[in-house]
Amino acid sequence: MKFTCNRDNLVEAINVVQRAISGKTTMPILEGILIEVIEELKMTANDLDLGITYEIPAIIEEVGSVLVSSKTFGDIVRKLPDIYVTIETSEANNLVIITSGKARFEISMMDIDEYPQVNFIDEEESVTFENEILRSLIKQSIFATADDDSKPMFKGVFIDKEGKTVNFVALCNSKMAIKHTSMENEKEFKILVPTRILNEVYKVLQITNENMSMAWSKTQVMFYNSHFKIISRLINSEYLKYRDLIPREDKLRVVVSTKDFLHAIERSALVMQDSSKYPMVLTTDMDEIVISAKAERGHSEERLPAQVNGSSLTIGFNTSNFIDCLKVIDDETISLHFTTSLGPCIVRGEEYDDYVFLVMPVRLKL
Amino acid sequence: MKFTCNRDNLVEAINVVQRAISGKTTMPILEGILIEVIEELKMTANDLDLGITYEIPAIIEEVGSVLVSSKTFGDIVRKLPDIYVTIETSEANNLVIITSGKARFEISMMDIDEYPQVNFIDEEESVTFENEILRSLIKQSIFATADDDSKPMFKGVFIDKEGKTVNFVALCNSKMAIKHTSMENEKEFKILVPTRILNEVYKVLQITNENMSMAWSKTQVMFYNSHFKIISRLINSEYLKYRDLIPREDKLRVVVSTKDFLHAIERSALVMQDSSKYPMVLTTDMDEIVISAKAERGHSEERLPAQVNGSSLTIGFNTSNFIDCLKVIDDETISLHFTTSLGPCIVRGEEYDDYVFLVMPVRLKL
Repeated sequence: MKFTCNRDNLVEAINVVQRAISGKTTMPILEGILIEVIEELKMTANDLDLGITYEIPAIIEEVGSVLVSSKTFGDIVRKLPDIYVTIETSEANNLVIITSGKARFEISMMDIDEYPQVNFIDEEESVTFENEILRSLIKQSIFATADDDSKPMFKGVFIDKEGKTVNFVALCNSKMAIKHTSMENEKEFKILVPTRILNEVYKVLQITNENMSMAWSKTQVMFYNSHFKIISRLINSEYLKYRDLIPREDKLRVVVSTKDFLHAIERSALVMQDSSKYPMVLTTDMDEIVISAKAERGHSEERLPAQVNGSSLTIGFNTSNFIDCLKVIDDETISLHFTTSLGPCIVRGEEYDDYVFLVMPVRLKL
Repeated sequence: MKFTCNRDNLVEAINVVQRAISGKTTMPILEGILIEVIEELKMTANDLDLGITYEIPAIIEEVGSVLVSSKTFGDIVRKLPDIYVTIETSEANNLVIITSGKARFEISMMDIDEYPQVNFIDEEESVTFENEILRSLIKQSIFATADDDSKPMFKGVFIDKEGKTVNFVALCNSKMAIKHTSMENEKEFKILVPTRILNEVYKVLQITNENMSMAWSKTQVMFYNSHFKIISRLINSEYLKYRDLIPREDKLRVVVSTKDFLHAIERSALVMQDSSKYPMVLTTDMDEIVISAKAERGHSEERLPAQVNGSSLTIGFNTSNFIDCLKVIDDETISLHFTTSLGPCIVRGEEYDDYVFLVMPVRLKL
């Protein structure tokens, strides 16, 4: 095997596929990157849960394939002196030779016969998302998943396609997000996609302008564009009737600046040593919303101008649940909808109506 | 006590004095910041080894002083919404009230009577350094100190003033730095100043254009400008006859690009899992210097164009010792001076002659 390629392209490919390498694998073979040169240069990594391939252009002198340590190979390539890099194998010595400018490295091959194949699914059942749209579908849903070892349902985003509308839904014990968009395609399906693959897809969407397609089978989901493929198992779990969680009507409606509200909540958490242990308290006062907190470090209170409609209410929330929501909102102003001090707060944009967030309150000690 | 000041000035003052607060103190009182308002607003922190005060302008309504938790106070002030902040005490409730815009915080006072005074020394024995010059004196010496629990002598910079020349000298088992400059002042003195105070002085020199003075007694050293003071104990230790460590003559002299040499050494370390365990090897070949290494991950070799004068040599070095040296050099090219494969390498600038660095080799296995 021998090829020459652009160093920065190679670094990009390594950075993407390395995300399929888990730092704590017990199988050393999974710390390898598979380099295959046939008609293109293709790099692959996988940890049995997640598999990624990435193709980049190369001047190919000799086809072949080799498995190298992802860490060693990545560390070296990132620091190469020249913009071009030539990689060739010396089969006799079991070595991979990396040259760039006047620098030359020899590293050992890993045993390619031991490497578990990644079986990408075919693309019969598929839909294509515009880059920007898929980014916002992921960004405005994934924050509501849970990252601890909770119910399987909480660890993924439920993609629920009904007619021309696709909903990205995520929820956990304390919050829920529903983000939707309309598509040309009328195919209907419901799949529960693990958080991890969506995080990686999101990162790739940021380094390219290309649109991204999604294909799926009964057990797997794959995202792909012209030079990138990522595959993961689906989560096998029932999903909640999520729309039923949103109250039909509200008793108090508050319109407030998203940024000011976010910053006031962040400040209220400053009096808490551990913000998961203390609530912030929201109340309304004429045309103001009042954010206050009392904890080990002291007491805080901040007033923000707001449009207040309905009966007044005192309600407590965990600050980080609200902060997670507000951070992914692009609208300048939002409306908050309340029922009782034990009912959820519904957050909607004033400008965009393609998302609904729900935040559960915490019971205040009297 | 009551005053109003600019939030960003207050943040700057907190950031500077907080560096005297050790994260692992066993005396909770030393986690406090002392705020004193007399004619100016003065903030102080100390951990018994190091004391810092910083003064900023304020509109003073009522003089007084208070001790607050550095962490709580700092976290709150950094996030305040308005550019102005008013701080007042409520003696009856033992509270400090912080208001800024529509945000208000109440935090508790710490017991000011328990707080150990910082005794700054008077300024009889003192010299003044230009800002830029003191920065480079510190930067080009301090890297050669040792940060582990080694000999006291290795943990400070020896400031050796002879006639009009001041030398900043640092050394440890593997390297030495001598940086000098000339001053108007002819006062002679020798003091061994702990690394820690110089690191903090360096940071303050970066946020101001002001020059910095240094005063000292038999046991203490203080650096100060118009609004900042920092004091520390001196290290009580003999110092080596450091000039004797530099060989009188050399047998090989190599002139090379500083940046290319640095990057080649960094790359050679990429084949090592732990760069402290393997040497890089330097040899010369006609008009090239060859940097190579062999370790667990493989083999590397890089050739750089160089002016080579003298008899050839094969010599090993720990990469990080050389990297530390090269990183603080501003010259585009340097000259490396060698005697034998067990003698030190002397590094000098081609453009500036106000520093000499020494790097000890490691013995190569044959």
